[in-house]
Amino acid sequence: MVEFRKPIFVETAVSKVMQHALQKQSELVSIQECDDRRLADPIIATNPVPSFDKSPYDGFAIRAEDTENASRENPAAFEVVDHIGAGELPKKALHKNEATRIMTGAQIPDGATCVVMFEVCQTYEKDGRCYMQLKRKIPAGENIMKAGSEVKEGQLLVKEGTRINPGVKAVLATFGYDKVRVAKKPIVGIISTGTELLEVHASIAAGKDSKFKCIYDRSASPQGRGEYRYYGQLPDQLEPSFHKIKTVLDEVDILITTGGVSVGDYDLMPLIYEKLGAEVLFNKVAMRPGSVTTVAALGNQLLFGLSGNPSACYVGFELFTRPILQAALYNNKPYLKRTKAVMADNFSKANPFTRFVRSYITYDEGRLSVHTAGIDKSNVVTSLAHATCLMVLPGGSKGYEAGSVVDVLLLEDLEGQASFDAFKKARKGKG
Amino acid sequence: MVEFRKPIFVETAVSKVMQHALQKQSELVSIQECDDRRLADPIIATNPVPSFDKSPYDGFAIRAEDTENASRENPAAFEVVDHIGAGELPKKALHKNEATRIMTGAQIPDGATCVVMFEVCQTYEKDGRCYMQLKRKIPAGENIMKAGSEVKEGQLLVKEGTRINPGVKAVLATFGYDKVRVAKKPIVGIISTGTELLEVHASIAAGKDSKFKCIYDRSASPQGRGEYRYYGQLPDQLEPSFHKIKTVLDEVDILITTGGVSVGDYDLMPLIYEKLGAEVLFNKVAMRPGSVTTVAALGNQLLFGLSGNPSACYVGFELFTRPILQAALYNNKPYLKRTKAVMADNFSKANPFTRFVRSYITYDEGRLSVHTAGIDKSNVVTSLAHATCLMVLPGGSKGYEAGSVVDVLLLEDLEGQASFDAFKKARKGKG
Repeated sequence: MVEFRKPIFVETAVSKVMQHALQKQSELVSIQECDDRRLADPIIATNPVPSFDKSPYDGFAIRAEDTENASRENPAAFEVVDHIGAGELPKKALHKNEATRIMTGAQIPDGATCVVMFEVCQTYEKDGRCYMQLKRKIPAGENIMKAGSEVKEGQLLVKEGTRINPGVKAVLATFGYDKVRVAKKPIVGIISTGTELLEVHASIAAGKDSKFKCIYDRSASPQGRGEYRYYGQLPDQLEPSFHKIKTVLDEVDILITTGGVSVGDYDLMPLIYEKLGAEVLFNKVAMRPGSVTTVAALGNQLLFGLSGNPSACYVGFELFTRPILQAALYNNKPYLKRTKAVMADNFSKANPFTRFVRSYITYDEGRLSVHTAGIDKSNVVTSLAHATCLMVLPGGSKGYEAGSVVDVLLLEDLEGQASFDAFKKARKGKG
Repeated sequence: MVEFRKPIFVETAVSKVMQHALQKQSELVSIQECDDRRLADPIIATNPVPSFDKSPYDGFAIRAEDTENASRENPAAFEVVDHIGAGELPKKALHKNEATRIMTGAQIPDGATCVVMFEVCQTYEKDGRCYMQLKRKIPAGENIMKAGSEVKEGQLLVKEGTRINPGVKAVLATFGYDKVRVAKKPIVGIISTGTELLEVHASIAAGKDSKFKCIYDRSASPQGRGEYRYYGQLPDQLEPSFHKIKTVLDEVDILITTGGVSVGDYDLMPLIYEKLGAEVLFNKVAMRPGSVTTVAALGNQLLFGLSGNPSACYVGFELFTRPILQAALYNNKPYLKRTKAVMADNFSKANPFTRFVRSYITYDEGRLSVHTAGIDKSNVVTSLAHATCLMVLPGGSKGYEAGSVVDVLLLEDLEGQASFDAFKKARKGKG
């Protein structure tokens, strides 16, 4: 009954999972529905910006050569022959000693070669006509934003895989993309195991206080990661469990089960993987919490057997499931962003395995500090509420003191990281 | 026509806006719909955790006193009288030399005072009955998670104002909150001004290449900030514009207009504020971009006159509109998170006003570096796509060199900051 399992390094486990990358798929969505999705195609400029020569200021458009001899003693005078509001088109081309009153963003009229700001002009009326005069020479090209000066037609603006934030959306809109090709979300099935689980609306029953798990599983799914489908709980018997999982596998790209992967009497998942003919990539990882995390591959599908403990489930999801989902979403930085931070607290609990401690980050004048987010037992759900990172404490040490510099994996960072190797090096570097 | 406006400091402007805090309002939503909302009530533990004494491991529950004399030479033997799966209840109380096989998370049976892990027990059968023996003394209390050891009933778990992330949601579910009281989103009306705007689906027309703005305005609205309603464009004439705004004000808490606040012929907003009888809090801020940002108060409503330039609009929204919305959402850290970072690039463009440069952050072994996100003219929309922070460059300097330490305001941070004063001090400190 007590099966021997050989633990593998976290980075080896991640690498094994990532060798089973899902096929990237894309779909066309309207710009109204693209928030937080990832681009499956790059955004290319469909027109130059600006698309015409335009004025960056309110002022007068004139021919620069008409100011050639202008001076304080000998101002150059211009008749104001047109008036262009932003969005209006010039009605007249300019000739010698003519000016067009022009608003910010409006198109430069034919003939004009510069714009003079209001503030440097004197306007006056004479014989019912409007005039403007200038006391200095203006160089050709002054205050004219040339067509294409900002963006050339065909220019690459935003790379594929980029998350569509408000800025990216503004770029899409600017270039007339009312539809956009985005990464299709992989379909992720979630099944909880074990009769100890209660749905959230059930009242507390003796022996059943772990009712948050099924809900937690569903909520560990920020936007844009996958399309989650909750398939309820697995019975505690092998045959019906096996058939349920087989049916669910017809509908999903990835299957997450929580619980059922340790070595207790009711832990059915190992038997189910065997019965399915799935290849178990690993069933023990040298980490706390979540050492029993198991991942199996079946054809193009991946089965994540996460721990039934909420924190271990959380860590297993972030380390192993997140990157495979992100990679399928065209993200070339699928891993959790790793950086270093100064420990704010002592952490005395030694363990031969690498610890991932639920923590939060503060910024101390641009230098990160990391604080533990509360009690760090794998079954303590309340500390999850305050965690914004995982502090990585390599195993084998007798504990860590406040002031130590350690690796942290940022949970709320939106950028990610291209490789998990850096983490491996950091671990080795610190022994 | 050229009106004189006296610029005020950014921090003074922010403080003027925040003196007109909106009334906080709350509503009850189901746990399924609470993602990214903010708690209007604290989360209190409705029951202790665990709610009963339970086993943290798979093993045997026994009476510790029965191991008093156990040794290698003289093992203590126990008859296995019951078997409790997780979620099942004990069927029997334990008596002398009896053991119950118990799974992780299951309730400790009456009479038992410790749990022994499988690995240290030898099991055997005799006369059709199951037995277990132990070769050492086990202290009372070993491997028993006491009821309430993690959380006491009535304990404050998560403060009001906290954003509901997956961890907070797990806490809600654990304590049976199937409904939760969250901050009601203020209703934010958005109106674009100016006929230079095209809707995104319109094709490029001569003189009208700024069609992204109306869309951008709508997309500058991450979840949980407000309930946005787009009211289309304002005509270029005063009377119909005034009436449109008056009608919209009947339906919103905050009104954002974009454009129409500078000093060109068609900039109607100053006239409209006057006609409405609104108190203009300021109409010029010592900052770039967005110096013409105007905010007016009318009773309990705020009118944000943001610049028509997309980047200036973006900066104005983040500095002035964001904190008033966040405060209404019970967030006691309503301001953009400010920290310091090392400049990765030179920035030579001097300006008497404080500059907010669209930039992005990288983490260099736990120290933040800040990089400009591309061309930084206020009308360049493409750089918005890559901005994750605003770099703050105080005015009056001749420019900044790579390696300088500057303030940055983090745009994608989810925590925020309690006060804007620190920014003011930093600015002064650097002259």
